[in-house]
Amino acid sequence: MKAAVLHRYDETLSSDTFVHYEDVPDPRIEKPTDVILRVGGAGVCRTDLHIVEGIWRSKVDVQLPYIMGHENAGWVEEVGPAVEGFAVGDAVICHPLVTSGHCLACRRGDDMHATDSQFPGVNANGGYADYLRTGQRSLIKLPAGLAPKDVAPYTDAGLTAYRAAKKASRHLLPGQFVTVIGAGGLGHIGIQVLAALCAAEIIAVDRSDTGLALAKECGAHHQIRADGEEVENVMALTGGRGAEAVIDFVGEGEAVAKGLAMTANAGFYYIVGYGGRIEMPTLDMITSEKTIVGNLVGTYPELVELMALADRGLVHLATREYRLKDANQALHDLHHGRIRGRAVLIP
Amino acid sequence: MKAAVLHRYDETLSSDTFVHYEDVPDPRIEKPTDVILRVGGAGVCRTDLHIVEGIWRSKVDVQLPYIMGHENAGWVEEVGPAVEGFAVGDAVICHPLVTSGHCLACRRGDDMHATDSQFPGVNANGGYADYLRTGQRSLIKLPAGLAPKDVAPYTDAGLTAYRAAKKASRHLLPGQFVTVIGAGGLGHIGIQVLAALCAAEIIAVDRSDTGLALAKECGAHHQIRADGEEVENVMALTGGRGAEAVIDFVGEGEAVAKGLAMTANAGFYYIVGYGGRIEMPTLDMITSEKTIVGNLVGTYPELVELMALADRGLVHLATREYRLKDANQALHDLHHGRIRGRAVLIP
Amino acid sequence: MKAAVLHRYDETLSSDTFVHYEDVPDPRIEKPTDVILRVGGAGVCRTDLHIVEGIWRSKVDVQLPYIMGHENAGWVEEVGPAVEGFAVGDAVICHPLVTSGHCLACRRGDDMHATDSQFPGVNANGGYADYLRTGQRSLIKLPAGLAPKDVAPYTDAGLTAYRAAKKASRHLLPGQFVTVIGAGGLGHIGIQVLAALCAAEIIAVDRSDTGLALAKECGAHHQIRADGEEVENVMALTGGRGAEAVIDFVGEGEAVAKGLAMTANAGFYYIVGYGGRIEMPTLDMITSEKTIVGNLVGTYPELVELMALADRGLVHLATREYRLKDANQALHDLHHGRIRGRAVLIP
Amino acid sequence: MKAAVLHRYDETLSSDTFVHYEDVPDPRIEKPTDVILRVGGAGVCRTDLHIVEGIWRSKVDVQLPYIMGHENAGWVEEVGPAVEGFAVGDAVICHPLVTSGHCLACRRGDDMHATDSQFPGVNANGGYADYLRTGQRSLIKLPAGLAPKDVAPYTDAGLTAYRAAKKASRHLLPGQFVTVIGAGGLGHIGIQVLAALCAAEIIAVDRSDTGLALAKECGAHHQIRADGEEVENVMALTGGRGAEAVIDFVGEGEAVAKGLAMTANAGFYYIVGYGGRIEMPTLDMITSEKTIVGNLVGTYPELVELMALADRGLVHLATREYRLKDANQALHDLHHGRIRGRAVLIP
Ligand SMILES: [Zn+2]
Ligand SMILES: [Zn+2]
Ligand SMILES: [Zn+2]
Ligand SMILES: [Zn+2]
Ligand SMILES: [Zn+2]
Ligand SMILES: [Zn+2]
Ligand SMILES: [Zn+2]
Ligand SMILES: [Zn+2]
Ligand SMILES: [Zn+2]
Ligand SMILES: [Zn+2]
Repeated sequence: MKAAVLHRYDETLSSDTFVHYEDVPDPRIEKPTDVILRVGGAGVCRTDLHIVEGIWRSKVDVQLPYIMGHENAGWVEEVGPAVEGFAVGDAVICHPLVTSGHCLACRRGDDMHATDSQFPGVNANGGYADYLRTGQRSLIKLPAGLAPKDVAPYTDAGLTAYRAAKKASRHLLPGQFVTVIGAGGLGHIGIQVLAALCAAEIIAVDRSDTGLALAKECGAHHQIRADGEEVENVMALTGGRGAEAVIDFVGEGEAVAKGLAMTANAGFYYIVGYGGRIEMPTLDMITSEKTIVGNLVGTYPELVELMALADRGLVHLATREYRLKDANQALHDLHHGRIRGRAVLIP
Repeated sequence: MKAAVLHRYDETLSSDTFVHYEDVPDPRIEKPTDVILRVGGAGVCRTDLHIVEGIWRSKVDVQLPYIMGHENAGWVEEVGPAVEGFAVGDAVICHPLVTSGHCLACRRGDDMHATDSQFPGVNANGGYADYLRTGQRSLIKLPAGLAPKDVAPYTDAGLTAYRAAKKASRHLLPGQFVTVIGAGGLGHIGIQVLAALCAAEIIAVDRSDTGLALAKECGAHHQIRADGEEVENVMALTGGRGAEAVIDFVGEGEAVAKGLAMTANAGFYYIVGYGGRIEMPTLDMITSEKTIVGNLVGTYPELVELMALADRGLVHLATREYRLKDANQALHDLHHGRIRGRAVLIP
Repeated sequence: MKAAVLHRYDETLSSDTFVHYEDVPDPRIEKPTDVILRVGGAGVCRTDLHIVEGIWRSKVDVQLPYIMGHENAGWVEEVGPAVEGFAVGDAVICHPLVTSGHCLACRRGDDMHATDSQFPGVNANGGYADYLRTGQRSLIKLPAGLAPKDVAPYTDAGLTAYRAAKKASRHLLPGQFVTVIGAGGLGHIGIQVLAALCAAEIIAVDRSDTGLALAKECGAHHQIRADGEEVENVMALTGGRGAEAVIDFVGEGEAVAKGLAMTANAGFYYIVGYGGRIEMPTLDMITSEKTIVGNLVGTYPELVELMALADRGLVHLATREYRLKDANQALHDLHHGRIRGRAVLIP
Repeated sequence: MKAAVLHRYDETLSSDTFVHYEDVPDPRIEKPTDVILRVGGAGVCRTDLHIVEGIWRSKVDVQLPYIMGHENAGWVEEVGPAVEGFAVGDAVICHPLVTSGHCLACRRGDDMHATDSQFPGVNANGGYADYLRTGQRSLIKLPAGLAPKDVAPYTDAGLTAYRAAKKASRHLLPGQFVTVIGAGGLGHIGIQVLAALCAAEIIAVDRSDTGLALAKECGAHHQIRADGEEVENVMALTGGRGAEAVIDFVGEGEAVAKGLAMTANAGFYYIVGYGGRIEMPTLDMITSEKTIVGNLVGTYPELVELMALADRGLVHLATREYRLKDANQALHDLHHGRIRGRAVLIP
């Protein structure tokens, strides 16, 4: 089959060619619960750029060359002998982790913390290819109205935004505020999820006109430019107390300190983006009684929930399609901020 | 002042004249925290009919003659010496209970279970009058956009619907269902609150075309007539499992048994209406692991939250205005099912 | 192998011989995830009496003759080809349900509501036998200090008590009260779990001196005889407000109405025992804002938690051992109230 | 009356005399809800040392000279005209904040975040004196078995430890671990509260033999010396995954980084002590999905709960008594680590 293969890291992202479009062997069923997917679409993610940079090298165990692509949807091509409930041709979306379902985390419904998981595209071959090997437990059947290429980025970008927004929605009340920092590929989903799941007023903070316009379309009630005065402006909007929840999809540079500063006392700062650092005196954490919450993608049931929102039209994903052989173009467009929403590679 | 006074119970609701419009002494400040309200509107409630019937006699301690009216909004007319933060002329809505704020329930934010409360219109004179004595702690200032006569019924009908819907919204997930039984004065608010606070699909069950049409306007995604087949129809809609939450605004007749039957296993049945009985074998409660939840109006902060929804236009209350002197007409219209939404008496 | 087999229902429990001790074929691996267990102990449960009476006939699909016994522990005897992580000879306890782990309930950690489960001893052959076929997903390895015959009844009786007590412990605060109705096989575990998981004062209500003495040993702070005055006595102990949680392990006769009556306003009544009926006016549910909670055994992770308590000595199970061939004696002793704690059959 | 008065800040804590024991005017009733307390005991707190150092100057608005002492208990000496429910001579303990009870935070049961509070001893005169002016809403009547001088430090030290431990107990399950860093004045209460409220295994980490011995007496199941290897040792104890909750009563130096490192993935780090900094890459927060929780004293109902624990003997406070005129001795003993438990000044 064809695949876009990563052969070497590029710490400065300066090469024109991050991945090579080439022939590789087809994946094969190895375990009785394995499934071969014909890829319908593979999302291109900032995490892929971080993988190319080598940032994830210390976190995961993977050898080059390998195939990136952790946001996958497509059709069942072949199933292992122990697979039940799926037939060849079924349109499916893949939860990013493949678990056995036996560890205590899985049993408690917290599969993101499984002790027994594989992460195709991150620690195994992924979906920048014609075919992908995954496991039965990662599959969710798609409703008839949703096409694989249109939903692929939900598996990571969408799911991560969904989980953080859902956590916030559990405590947000009418009359309260939630600030979303960064109205890009994740943020624009986060805003739509918040609008669907709670009645807090949504404040979008972004550097660009494009981002703020997208935020407004997605349901943000207020738009604030990240121009250095964003903390003061959020404070002014919220009667001086800050937002009861802040979801930071940027997570680097000044966003972190500003995000924490615009969080109300007794409020929650959800960190989703990464690259930067949290730095805060313990005294300030105590007098403010704020909570800082890490967010790691989302669970399989949460992806089912997100598909329900998408199927009802409550969440819409802005995508831009690329041919698989144009993967480098997609990665560069993402790197240079030229993509509104999410890029998807189509074999 | 003028008031519509209840002089005697009428167990069969057969009299033309439940209350008498007559002159009574003005209420006066008695405690330092008392407030005199110039009534802008007083909601007429099914509970008032139940009071006339004498159903509440065993639950509360009140002597006839007295003035009903527990859903009040208006303007501050006079304040006691210890009242802070309110000035004559302020437009306010009254939480139905007047508490001292000192008992442990109040301290925990659960003022509906205060051990130290008064309930004007139920166990003290209420708002079917030109003026009403209440206490500082019951008052919430109205946003500029909301007029007392338009919001008065929120204090009980709206608040009760809000609290039950909010409880349900805490556990309802995308892909799940909530059934609202009874799309009347409370139910039509409950539907709007559910639509604002969660992304479950809303099924309205009502006997009448009017109710079902109102439910649809309010955001119900499915309408089912209460024609005897409503359990089967809810089951069919929900893939055979029932609704994860059922909010029963009827609470009498067959609604209770049917409401419990259409609740999914591990689901929640919220009982709001009353008059009937819960009857269920313990074996069925155990094998289904259902939960039955009683609902008693709502807290002061919940009324603040509901006002925030109303102020943003997320909840709208259908009202029909009557002159205070026409209180009997309003009560009879309610009794005979001739009111869409809620009746409000205006002095 | 030998087994104690149920050949016919006995609605009045009047026969001397409920089950027959006889030779039956050994169970065999059928699915790749099957496991054959050498039974170390099988708990004898009131549910078994109810099965003999035929009460469960309408709830489950099983054909006579079959083998009861749903509270099983023992040693792995043989594993199917897809079983990982268990070896022949491992001492294990069995969660009562065998699930595939694929349905949404399992994925959410709520395996008791799996749509894909088998319940050995209830809808398939159980552990009143030398060997039992179960599935990998039901198995939990035992810590070295716990022997199968000593822990078998935890799988249902203990787990059911644990789950209800755990639910209550999530909201019980210091200064509050929890009443346990029935200090028998389940109740004495429930009391120990409450003592381990929260700091509410525990009130035991039981008909017998034996029960009250066992309750005291298990950590109940107050003992009240179920002599007709138990509601008044609980009210007196709790300053007139009732207990914030009531766990009813009896669930029949007067226990239900009394249990509801001794529940505090805004409190929770947990129903575990069965045979009786819940009957309550909706008006009372509303003015009291009580919650009635059904309880169905417990999840796999909850059984892991309970084993952790048992291993640390925080929960102790009173058992009485019988030879498997004396199963009828055990069933009769249970029926006639002659067992303190739980009976266990040992092959 | 006599009081120990703070006249100047001492940033290096190098003076022998932090406060002056001298005559000052008696406090007087000013507002109708004021109460004059005859001080029975005033706790001496590390916060008092931080006040002397001037650390709190930027956080609160107070003018020197003033009287410290924010951990107070005693007897009602005089009540304002609007005070209900308290009589001269009543033994009481004071919640540290005096609120009006009217703001939304108070209404929601979250009085620590009141917008309308006074904090005697921090932003107003406190209890290092014969008499103290406070407000009705701060008072809790003491059970007969508890003397003011023995419970005074519960109001802040105890309450802070209680709230953090209670938060952790809400999610800690049997089989999980909680680490307490610092077994001093707060930590030894925290350990006792954890032992009362949950069944997780408690690991105490402290630098000193005294601390570890006190931790063991208080119910810690494991003691680990803070000798540089504490992270590795906690990891070893917890099967390599870390503790599901870490409560850091130190909050400065290496404790913070080590506390975060020994927190399990998806676990919670509760920060209570202060003086240091939280520093963590956002990437680590995301891959670990940890939560960092600030903790600010506790609510009035939580102090009621803590008194219930103390009254039942489930929590015991180690105190050392000093005469009020020996306040400087107490402050220096605290500063130099010479106090086991908490110091209390007695007028
Ligand atoms: Zn991604
Ligand atoms: Zn797992
Ligand atoms: Zn480039
Ligand atoms: Zn009403
Ligand atoms: Zn109260
Ligand atoms: Zn009529
Ligand atoms: Zn059983
Ligand atoms: Zn399942
Ligand atoms: Zn202190
Ligand atoms: Zn306040």
